[in-house]
Amino acid sequence: MSQSNTLVEAFKQTNYQLNGHGKRNIQILKEAITELDGLQESDMYGQGKIIEDFQAKMADYLGKESAVFFPSGTMAQQIALRIWCDKKVLKKVAYHPLSHLEIHEEDGLKKLHHIESVLLADKTRLIELEDVLNIEEDVACILLELPQREIGGQLPDFKTLEDISGYCRDKGIKLHLDGARLFEILPYYKKSAVEICNLFDSVYISFYKGIGGIAGAILAGDPSFIEVSKVWKRRHGGDLISLYPYIVSSEYYLDQRLPKMNQYYEYAIEVAELFNQCRSVSTLPIQPVSNMFHVYFNISKDKLEPILTAIYKKTGIGLTSYVVEKSEQSCYCEINIGDQVTKIPKGKLTKGFQMLDESMKNLKY
Amino acid sequence: MSQSNTLVEAFKQTNYQLNGHGKRNIQILKEAITELDGLQESDMYGQGKIIEDFQAKMADYLGKESAVFFPSGTMAQQIALRIWCDKKVLKKVAYHPLSHLEIHEEDGLKKLHHIESVLLADKTRLIELEDVLNIEEDVACILLELPQREIGGQLPDFKTLEDISGYCRDKGIKLHLDGARLFEILPYYKKSAVEICNLFDSVYISFYKGIGGIAGAILAGDPSFIEVSKVWKRRHGGDLISLYPYIVSSEYYLDQRLPKMNQYYEYAIEVAELFNQCRSVSTLPIQPVSNMFHVYFNISKDKLEPILTAIYKKTGIGLTSYVVEKSEQSCYCEINIGDQVTKIPKGKLTKGFQMLDESMKNLKY
Repeated sequence: MSQSNTLVEAFKQTNYQLNGHGKRNIQILKEAITELDGLQESDMYGQGKIIEDFQAKMADYLGKESAVFFPSGTMAQQIALRIWCDKKVLKKVAYHPLSHLEIHEEDGLKKLHHIESVLLADKTRLIELEDVLNIEEDVACILLELPQREIGGQLPDFKTLEDISGYCRDKGIKLHLDGARLFEILPYYKKSAVEICNLFDSVYISFYKGIGGIAGAILAGDPSFIEVSKVWKRRHGGDLISLYPYIVSSEYYLDQRLPKMNQYYEYAIEVAELFNQCRSVSTLPIQPVSNMFHVYFNISKDKLEPILTAIYKKTGIGLTSYVVEKSEQSCYCEINIGDQVTKIPKGKLTKGFQMLDESMKNLKY
Repeated sequence: MSQSNTLVEAFKQTNYQLNGHGKRNIQILKEAITELDGLQESDMYGQGKIIEDFQAKMADYLGKESAVFFPSGTMAQQIALRIWCDKKVLKKVAYHPLSHLEIHEEDGLKKLHHIESVLLADKTRLIELEDVLNIEEDVACILLELPQREIGGQLPDFKTLEDISGYCRDKGIKLHLDGARLFEILPYYKKSAVEICNLFDSVYISFYKGIGGIAGAILAGDPSFIEVSKVWKRRHGGDLISLYPYIVSSEYYLDQRLPKMNQYYEYAIEVAELFNQCRSVSTLPIQPVSNMFHVYFNISKDKLEPILTAIYKKTGIGLTSYVVEKSEQSCYCEINIGDQVTKIPKGKLTKGFQMLDESMKNLKY
């Protein structure tokens, strides 16, 4: 068995995990539907009480007039950008070089919609107002991802958002929010979803990150935008006869975990501190601004994996199931704080991090 | 309340229905998962035992080397045609004028993939070998829908299929099967799925028609075709983190209803006969070749609706929940035979049709 597989196996055997809400298994679905009335009617191709009620609830929560449920964010966001491009008869949008659309979607935006991307900022940092002011080409739309996941979940300050939003409105550039982790950033900004979404023309949110649902997304905006998005949803093959398995589970876990976002955020700060107290370990950002952060280890992946495996076996705490090589002498992982961390006895957690610190000291590269 | 709504309401109140497997409600999902092991792991972006096992099972059933699960047939089929077009560097395909791609998908094939369609045969009849021989333009792929749903679910004879397949192979034209109702036609052809699919380069099947699942589709073909289809699935936004709610329910109802396809077919013939015995009523086809057929009434929709409503109230049997206007003096509906019809006592069924016959006699247009 490879070192990486040994790490995964040791992680699976742990009693406690730092990350997420627990295993993604069928129990997630079972729990979500057990109390539901079996006689409740399915949605039918986007129609019916079960989907319309949830769409209305989320539109209201986001402060938008209208919303539509999508099977995936990939589909929702390509469509949002397509609509704004068509409206301006200009097939060009701007976003971060590490946007989901740029690196995780097999270039769907380009291959299906023939939309060009202008990359703002660089891979190591957030988009700032200056990046927006300095765009040299006309673009129909700018997409902002809050938090910027691939750089540890960083956030611009709220003033920057307001300035970018104001500039875009002046210039007739549509502003779209990739809010895959919108719920998770509310505690840091100390704002409501409405206050944040007011700055954007369209918003996408996801139900399987901090919410811990099975899959699914909402796209929200003005009624004419949403009506057109439904046409594109059908074209993409996303207008399923029944989406209710995702809808009911999204709602179930939303109701359960939305009130816990503050708790996840505070735990993230605490856990990041524990990492930062270990030698040759640091988090990005140093102090998290949501429930997520990245952890960097100044040691090769090959050397770190056996260290982590030993910690898991000794303490029963799984810190991460994987590490990604960054350079020959460094590697990293992503932590998303959810329900799991709250189950770890504090003493055990401290012990796990002490062992990490000791191991990093002893095994210098 | 409009007449149509009155009909729907009366239909909902009936104890017995001619059509389908029963109400599409959450109970369908509850029943499918109740016996499953909650600890079974979710699929993750197309990977994992739960999706891979089902894909392998369906590939085997269809006699293809490889298969991939899709959230919808709309997505699966556009992608199949796109791959064949790319392979031939020719963005043109041929299919029936009433193909799902032409009339139910908001022109996704054209708007997303820029593929032109050449329409074979005309709206009133099946595609025959001659239509294929006479195509005047080069096409990359021909799609055949078996049965041809929008004309009552008609089928060409098997020899025609073999001839079209042989011709396409000779000419280097790919042949794709829209097998949304493939399970349903096996009893008529007296062939296995493998024997039919052998004639095609790629095959799509659905799990919520005769199978009665919640949603979901399989696309099958050779391994290189399927690998590329997974890339397009991601581009379309169909590579969800978890598709298992559709997978497990598809498998559950497949196992339950695949053995009943012969029974549905025989009932369809019987029920069609009952319709045809009524004055001014006829089915298309006269003798069904699957579990489905259309029923034509030589009377206006406005006159038929109150007749049906009265029959439902009197007999407790719902024949159809809707009728579609065909002309000023005719209308029609679609019947898909499933589990529901088997629950109707024969005496009651006969009585319902006697009443339909009497009503049609008395109320001439």
